[in-house]
Amino acid sequence: MVYMSKALPKRSENYSEWYNEIVKRADLAENSAVRGCMVIKPYGFAIWEKMQRALDDMFKATGHQNAYFPLFVPRSFLEKEEEHAEGFAKECAVVTHYRLKANPDGKGLVVDPNAKLEEELIIRPTSETVIWSAYKNWIQSWRDLPILINQWANVVRWEMRTRIFLRTAEFLWQEGHTAHATEEEAVEETHKILGIYADFAEQWMAMPVVQGVKTASERFAGAEDTFCIEALMQDGKALQAGTSHFLGQNFARSFDVQFVNKENQLEYAWATSWGVSTRLMGALIMAHSDDNGLVLPPKLAPIQVVIVPIYRSPEDLAKISESIEPLIGALKTAGLAVKYDDSDNQRSGWKFAEYELRGVPVRLGIGMRDLENGTIEVARRDTLTKESRPIDLVSPDSFVAGIKSLLDEIQESIYDRALRFREENTFLVDTWDEFKEQIEKGGFIMAHWDGTAETEEKIKEETKATIRCIPLVSDEMAGKCVYSGKESAKRVLFARAY
Amino acid sequence: MVYMSKALPKRSENYSEWYNEIVKRADLAENSAVRGCMVIKPYGFAIWEKMQRALDDMFKATGHQNAYFPLFVPRSFLEKEEEHAEGFAKECAVVTHYRLKANPDGKGLVVDPNAKLEEELIIRPTSETVIWSAYKNWIQSWRDLPILINQWANVVRWEMRTRIFLRTAEFLWQEGHTAHATEEEAVEETHKILGIYADFAEQWMAMPVVQGVKTASERFAGAEDTFCIEALMQDGKALQAGTSHFLGQNFARSFDVQFVNKENQLEYAWATSWGVSTRLMGALIMAHSDDNGLVLPPKLAPIQVVIVPIYRSPEDLAKISESIEPLIGALKTAGLAVKYDDSDNQRSGWKFAEYELRGVPVRLGIGMRDLENGTIEVARRDTLTKESRPIDLVSPDSFVAGIKSLLDEIQESIYDRALRFREENTFLVDTWDEFKEQIEKGGFIMAHWDGTAETEEKIKEETKATIRCIPLVSDEMAGKCVYSGKESAKRVLFARAY
Repeated sequence: MVYMSKALPKRSENYSEWYNEIVKRADLAENSAVRGCMVIKPYGFAIWEKMQRALDDMFKATGHQNAYFPLFVPRSFLEKEEEHAEGFAKECAVVTHYRLKANPDGKGLVVDPNAKLEEELIIRPTSETVIWSAYKNWIQSWRDLPILINQWANVVRWEMRTRIFLRTAEFLWQEGHTAHATEEEAVEETHKILGIYADFAEQWMAMPVVQGVKTASERFAGAEDTFCIEALMQDGKALQAGTSHFLGQNFARSFDVQFVNKENQLEYAWATSWGVSTRLMGALIMAHSDDNGLVLPPKLAPIQVVIVPIYRSPEDLAKISESIEPLIGALKTAGLAVKYDDSDNQRSGWKFAEYELRGVPVRLGIGMRDLENGTIEVARRDTLTKESRPIDLVSPDSFVAGIKSLLDEIQESIYDRALRFREENTFLVDTWDEFKEQIEKGGFIMAHWDGTAETEEKIKEETKATIRCIPLVSDEMAGKCVYSGKESAKRVLFARAY
Repeated sequence: MVYMSKALPKRSENYSEWYNEIVKRADLAENSAVRGCMVIKPYGFAIWEKMQRALDDMFKATGHQNAYFPLFVPRSFLEKEEEHAEGFAKECAVVTHYRLKANPDGKGLVVDPNAKLEEELIIRPTSETVIWSAYKNWIQSWRDLPILINQWANVVRWEMRTRIFLRTAEFLWQEGHTAHATEEEAVEETHKILGIYADFAEQWMAMPVVQGVKTASERFAGAEDTFCIEALMQDGKALQAGTSHFLGQNFARSFDVQFVNKENQLEYAWATSWGVSTRLMGALIMAHSDDNGLVLPPKLAPIQVVIVPIYRSPEDLAKISESIEPLIGALKTAGLAVKYDDSDNQRSGWKFAEYELRGVPVRLGIGMRDLENGTIEVARRDTLTKESRPIDLVSPDSFVAGIKSLLDEIQESIYDRALRFREENTFLVDTWDEFKEQIEKGGFIMAHWDGTAETEEKIKEETKATIRCIPLVSDEMAGKCVYSGKESAKRVLFARAY
């Protein structure tokens, strides 16, 4: 690969190009030859694996288990829950045949018309229907409940306009599907998961989120209530980062999943479903990165510390490599993901830029003079600052302890910066003129709304702003709807969104 | 769920039913409403996760990285490598449309004829074509090589006769796809992976395998050479547990992946691909389990140690629960997966049978008399033996050390038993009458073969036996083909197979 010395586009000049270029040049992913589908490259996938591991641990710690359900949804299953069917029918990849054959009229392969399926199969856009058709056989008594299952899977939604990571025809996600004996317990589960998502976003991704509930028109197709976490991107647009649905008894009814409750009566089971996807990769990039490239929170960085030797001769390199062996060992022992880049085909300056682009949180540079002086250069990716630190190369434990706290500090500092950005870009707006003006500039708008779908729709039509959520935590101060002037009990969160 | 007190079918009476019943009653998996597709239930999936983790660590330790490529293969991609296309065209799930619509003639949904894809998409049966179409853009110079990528994914092969875990329309697997600058390096990679598969099978699954190379007629469609590991199941049939393919330059040619080599000349890249799948779950079950249920090697058991309290009154239970807290803590600290089953809705006898069925390697039973005596009952799943062991419940460390060695012993003992079984069921056969007689009884047959596809085919027709592989390690003793009487350089491995 030839190194593209060309600088990245600036966020302020072309945000969208900046995003695409970071995805490409940090080697995270690329569009594939298949329309709307992406290839997640090793460096991008390593970040996703770290996300998966953290979330999976959190799910398991709260009693959830993983399982796997079929990729295919029979057409008749999708039909069963009406709203759900309506929501997903328009973007389904449909399998109609199960065989190809040699083209009788020439070269290549054609669909074999004799291998038509009796009933078409949809590639799962989400798995409620397949899973509830299985749960029917698993649930007879309240003793069989709760069922707390999660699956890591690929899903397909045939979107017309796709955007790498943010909206792709195929994406990877986890989908939790739980069944409960009581409404109360299902509601509690919905909130518990929302809390896990918020913790993950804030503590791992260093991305502050607003927890809230969707309006009826933004609900998941088939849900009674959809809860979400919403994050603010650097261009002032909102990104929905995870959703947790209270499904009531809708799917239990559609699939006739009844159980004998403690009062010995037949009752439909109560359901939740919840998911986050590779969309989080897009959120991660857009929340923190800068005009020099990716900025990764240390907890999700595939390489947390990179060591770059600075040398002229092979002898110097050999000397440096030997001297830092204990350091590399100590960093690994401390549980850090460290890379020593002694490749000889690029200069150290090129390497510096490359690891900056890839968002490695801490870079250590060490040259011959450092060896003499017992120092090492420590560079922070988030602030782009560097300093020379003393190091005892023979027993580097105290230096390593310093690097560990530095990584914690970076994790916190990235979060703080994103939080500050959100605070500076959240606006209490009380008039319609102000609303229209502010929405053009971006940011979160907290405004009163009269609670009607009509007003919500009109605001969307006129400004492209949607109600991202009704925040769970907010000042319960009454006011007048910013659009209609009617009564409103509290402010809701508006923004333009990805 | 009502407990099925009915005993399992015996292996000796109905092996196939025995297998199905274990899968069902140990709660590993079930057939789904979608033809040929399975649901992997939490307990089964937990075993698969342990397999994944172990393999993934081995791949990463040898320099491989994970990535993710699209689910869809455009029809034209499949056409590019002729043998490959021929091999997979007959069992493809084909996506032809991307939308459903409301049925104009009544209820439900129908395929929208206006949403027909210009080019059909195949659900990947394997990803060589999609991946090599991406590699084309990644490989320009020998400096870009090797590429050592693995992906964990679902694949679909529309099999007509399916069997849970062993042969399902959709299955989970990992597929490695590597690109190299030289033939030598690619061949070396093929062997390295075969070695990893054999180590995993033997050290984790406790399942001895024969490493070998397939004959031309059993090769992967598009490969120059297919290497495999073959295991012997308890019914005397062979099971192919993993394959590693040397693909030569076939896919590089089909997708025009050329690079500038060190001699500054354009050359096609050299490829390998390799995979193991959820089929290993079937192998694991069939290799070790007995007429009482599943037998799991400790290294892959989701629960390694289960503790069952034996009590009459709630007070007794409370006393036992309190007394064994340090034991549970010490087992966890020792890194063991332990479950304390204090559920009050089943008797201890029921629990004993249940954990036996589920293959938990070690069961600890503790009652009031044990508390008084400072003892605990230790039961081994593999041998179905039990003994009373002394335990200091206040500081149980030495007891736990004993359990740890017991688990190691069980792991080894399960392997030894399987190896002994294979040795006792591997037969050197030199005459055709003997061959026909032995193949009916099952087992591995080591016999001479004249090396021709004709003979191979005739033996298959007459006996349903296939050449499982030409073992890599064997006595190089010449002889006469068991069928044709022609010259043969060494024996090959015959068996009937799953």
